[in-house]
Amino acid sequence: MDKTSRRKGRALRRGAPPVRNVDYRHLRHPFTAQKVLSDDAVAAIHDMALRLLEDLGLRVLLPEARAIYASGGAIIDEGTEMVRIGRDMVAASLATAPKSIRMRAPNPERELIYEEGALIFSPAGGCPNATDRIRGRRPGNLATFEETLKLHQSFDVIHKLGPSAEPQDVPAHLRHYAMMRGQLTLSDKPLFVYARGRGQIEDSFEMIRLAMGLSEDDFTDGSWATTVINTNSPRQLDKPMAEGIIDFARAGQLSIITPFCLAGAMAPVTVEGALVLQHAECLAGITLAQLVRPGAPVSYGGFSSNVDMKSGAPAFGTPTHIRLAIGTGQLARHVGMPWRSAAGSASNVADMQAAGENHMGLWANLVANATLTVHSAGWLEGGLTFGYEKFINDIEALQIIAELCTPLSSNPDDLAWAALSDVQPGGHFFATQHTMDRFDRAFYGPLVADLANHGSWEAAGAQTSTERATSIWQTVLAEFAPPDGSEGRGHRITRFIADRSAEGGAPPPD
Amino acid sequence: MDKTSRRKGRALRRGAPPVRNVDYRHLRHPFTAQKVLSDDAVAAIHDMALRLLEDLGLRVLLPEARAIYASGGAIIDEGTEMVRIGRDMVAASLATAPKSIRMRAPNPERELIYEEGALIFSPAGGCPNATDRIRGRRPGNLATFEETLKLHQSFDVIHKLGPSAEPQDVPAHLRHYAMMRGQLTLSDKPLFVYARGRGQIEDSFEMIRLAMGLSEDDFTDGSWATTVINTNSPRQLDKPMAEGIIDFARAGQLSIITPFCLAGAMAPVTVEGALVLQHAECLAGITLAQLVRPGAPVSYGGFSSNVDMKSGAPAFGTPTHIRLAIGTGQLARHVGMPWRSAAGSASNVADMQAAGENHMGLWANLVANATLTVHSAGWLEGGLTFGYEKFINDIEALQIIAELCTPLSSNPDDLAWAALSDVQPGGHFFATQHTMDRFDRAFYGPLVADLANHGSWEAAGAQTSTERATSIWQTVLAEFAPPDGSEGRGHRITRFIADRSAEGGAPPPD
Repeated sequence: MDKTSRRKGRALRRGAPPVRNVDYRHLRHPFTAQKVLSDDAVAAIHDMALRLLEDLGLRVLLPEARAIYASGGAIIDEGTEMVRIGRDMVAASLATAPKSIRMRAPNPERELIYEEGALIFSPAGGCPNATDRIRGRRPGNLATFEETLKLHQSFDVIHKLGPSAEPQDVPAHLRHYAMMRGQLTLSDKPLFVYARGRGQIEDSFEMIRLAMGLSEDDFTDGSWATTVINTNSPRQLDKPMAEGIIDFARAGQLSIITPFCLAGAMAPVTVEGALVLQHAECLAGITLAQLVRPGAPVSYGGFSSNVDMKSGAPAFGTPTHIRLAIGTGQLARHVGMPWRSAAGSASNVADMQAAGENHMGLWANLVANATLTVHSAGWLEGGLTFGYEKFINDIEALQIIAELCTPLSSNPDDLAWAALSDVQPGGHFFATQHTMDRFDRAFYGPLVADLANHGSWEAAGAQTSTERATSIWQTVLAEFAPPDGSEGRGHRITRFIADRSAEGGAPPPD
Repeated sequence: MDKTSRRKGRALRRGAPPVRNVDYRHLRHPFTAQKVLSDDAVAAIHDMALRLLEDLGLRVLLPEARAIYASGGAIIDEGTEMVRIGRDMVAASLATAPKSIRMRAPNPERELIYEEGALIFSPAGGCPNATDRIRGRRPGNLATFEETLKLHQSFDVIHKLGPSAEPQDVPAHLRHYAMMRGQLTLSDKPLFVYARGRGQIEDSFEMIRLAMGLSEDDFTDGSWATTVINTNSPRQLDKPMAEGIIDFARAGQLSIITPFCLAGAMAPVTVEGALVLQHAECLAGITLAQLVRPGAPVSYGGFSSNVDMKSGAPAFGTPTHIRLAIGTGQLARHVGMPWRSAAGSASNVADMQAAGENHMGLWANLVANATLTVHSAGWLEGGLTFGYEKFINDIEALQIIAELCTPLSSNPDDLAWAALSDVQPGGHFFATQHTMDRFDRAFYGPLVADLANHGSWEAAGAQTSTERATSIWQTVLAEFAPPDGSEGRGHRITRFIADRSAEGGAPPPD
C-alpha cells in the first residue's frame, strides 16, 4: 500500500492509528560490505574469467551480436559461433559502463538511483504459476498478473516491478501489450520488459513513450525500462538474450546481466569456480552493451546458488547461496559496478522453510551490499510459483530491513536522562513523558506478525502467519485504488495496442 | 546428533550418505562487527550510564551485596537500599574482568573459549511450557526437560546447555538435583545452573565436582557452570540474582549479566535510552562480581527488544531488537568484554512468523558479533513455550550459519579451470571430474528443508517443514544414546542426591 492507504488499511484492520513516517521508498545499505574471498582470490577469479573469455570464449547464437563483438576486436569462429573477447575490450567496456543509473518511473517520487550503496527490492519474477489459500495452485493468467501488480504497488518497500505471474491466457504474440498496460495502469513504479524478441521490445518501449508522452530524448534521459538477461550458462548467449542486450543498449534502457550459475549443474561445484564462470559471462554481456552504445545502462548481476546433489534440484538460502552472493558483491566492486542479486525459496508452501530460505537470501544480500535484490517477496518452488501468503510474510521481512536504513538520531533527548531519573527502581516507563511523546512512532508496527499471548491467539482462531496473510492480501486487493495518472496512461496506449494487435502483434522468437 | 549419528540418522531417513566433516562445535564469527551508533554516541551512552550509577544508583535488595559494594567504595543508603557506584569502581572492575573464559564441559572436546570473536549458540531457555504436534502444549515436566536435553545433545551446533523446559513435576526444593542429573547423564556439553538461592547453587557445584571428580582447584580452572543473572530493570537487583553473582564469583563460575530491557516498558522507549539503562545495570553486576573476586568470570550481556505499544507484549526480531543487539555489541566492545545476546520469537506456533523473528535475531547477532546467542533454537511465545518443531527448524538456520564459519580454501583447484575448459557451451558440470571429486561434500545437506518439486512433494503428503520436523525429533529421541561417561557421572552423584533430598533439599528463596 502507499503510505496513506497502508496506514488507513492497517488502522481499519487493527483499530489503532500508528503515526509513523519512515521512508521505505529510497533505501541505502545500513551495513558495510562483507567478504568471503581474500583480495587475492578476487583478483585470481577476475583474471581467470578474463582468460576464459580470451582463450575459451563464449558461444553467441545471434549473428548480429557476433558481428558487434567482432567490430570491437573479438575473434570469431563463425562455424562454432564462438566469440573470444580480449581483456582490453573488457577493460574498455568497464570504463564506459555507468556506475550510477537513473531509474525512471511514471511517478517521479518512485524514481531510483541504481548505484553502489542503494538497496532496491523487486518482487518474485518469472513465475508460471500462482498459489493462495483460497484458490489453490494454478497456472498464472491475466487476472493473477494484475493482482500481483496491485500487491507490488501497495507496499512501498517493493521498489520496482517484476513479472510475478505469467498471463498465460493471453496469446504469446499479444502478451507484452497486456503486461505493459497492467504495469502502466495499476502501478507507478519502475517498469519491467521481457526481452522476448525485437518486436516485443520495440512495442514495449513505444507504449512507455506514448503513455508518458516522452520524446526519444526524454526516453533515454535515464532508464525507463529494465530487463533481466539470463545467459545460458555455461558460456552461451542465446538469440533473444543477445537481442535484448543490443536493443536495450541502443535505446538507453537498463539490461541486468544475470548468469544463473547453479554450482554443480550449470557451473563448477566450488564457489570460486562458479564465480569465475558468472564473472566471465557478466563481463561478456556488459562488453556487448558497451560496444553497442558506450555508456549504455547495464548492470552486473548474479543469481547463483547450488543444486541438491541428490536430485539436481536448485536450493536457495543455503551456505553456498550466501557465499556466492557475498562473493558476487566483491567481484562487482572489483570492477566498480552496481549489481543485482536475489533471494528466494525452494519450498512448496509458505512455511518455516520458505521463510528461512528467504531470510537467509535477504541477509546475504544485506551483508553483500547488493544494489538490487530480485525475487525478494513471494517466490516459491524455486520460482515456479508466486505465493500470495508468502508475499505478505516476505513484505514483513523487507519492511523490518527497511527500518534499519534510517539512521538513529542519537540526540541528547534519546539518551532519556529525565525518564531514567523519574522512574523508580523496579518501575516502568509506560507512562513517562519521554515515552508518551514517542510511543505512537517509536516502533515498527507489524503487518502480519501477531504478538497476542497464547490464550488470546487461540481464542481468535489459532491462525498461523500464513493463514493471517490471506485476509491481508484480500484486504489490499479489495481496497486497491489505481495510482494517480493511471487512467491517462492507459488511455494513451489503447489505440496503439488495438492497431498493433490487429497487425498481428509481435510473436516471441522460437 | 553428534556427527556420526547425525550422518547415520540422515542416511537412514534419506537413503544418501553425505560424507562431510564441517566442525560445528567451535565457531568464530565470519563477519565484521557492524554499528548502529556513532563512536560519539557510544561514548555518550557509556558516560551517561556511569552518571546513572554515580548519581541515581541501583536498588540492591540483598544486604550482603550492599556490604560488598560498600567495601569497594560505593555510597549506600540502607533505608532505601540504594547503592551509588563511582566510575572509579567500574573502571577497576573492568580492568580485572577476564576477556577470555575457558568454558569447561564433561567432554573436553565440547569446551568453549568464551571471548570476543567466538560464536556460541545455546538453546531456548527458561520455558515453563513445551509444545509439539503430537502431544500439544502442556506445562514442562521432567520427561520433557530430559527430552530437550537429548535434543540439545544431538546437534553439535548447540554449544552449551540451557534449561529449555521447567520440570515442574519435581518439587522446587529438589528440582536442581533432577536438572543437574539430567545434564550430566544425557549430555556432555557445558552446564547451566539456575541462581535460585545459595543452597541450590552450592548443591549444583558439588554435584559437578563429584560427577567429574574435581578438586576445588580443578573446579575453578576455567568455568564449569554458567548462570544468567537478570536484573529487575530498571535499576534493581533482587536477592537471588545478587546472591547468584556473589556465589558464582566466589566459586570462579561464570555469571552472565543480562538486563532484560524492553524498550517502552522496563526501559526508555528509545534505543539509546534503553542502552544507557542496560549498560549501567551490566556494569553494576560486573562490578559486584569483581569486588567479590577480582578476575572472576563474568559476561556482559543484553536481551533487549521492544514491546508492542498497543498491548505491552514483548516483540522479537523487530528493527528495535536488531538495533539494540548491534548497539549492545558496540558497548561491550567499548568496555572490552565478551557478551551475550539472544534471538527468539513471540509467535504462538512454528510458522513463518516464528522463523522470521528467529532469523532476524540470529542475523542481528551475527552482524553484531555476539559471543553467545541464547534462545537460538526452540523459543516460542516470547519464551513461555519450548517448541519441538520450531527447535528442529531453528537448528537448520544455525547449521547454515555455522557453515559460513569455515573459510573458503580458494586454492587454484577451486577455480576449476579444467572443468570450465571441458564443459562445452550450454552443457553441464554434473559429470566432470572436478564435480565428481567433490559432490559428496561440496554442499550443506538440509536437515528439514525439502527440495522436491511440487508433484513429488504433494505425492509424499504435502507436508510443511513444521510437519516434517515432527518425525525428525521423534527419530532423534528414538535413536538417542547417552554420551560416553554419562553412566559414571550419574553414579557418582546418586548418593549425594539421596542424602541431600533426605535432608530436605534446598528450597529456592521466596
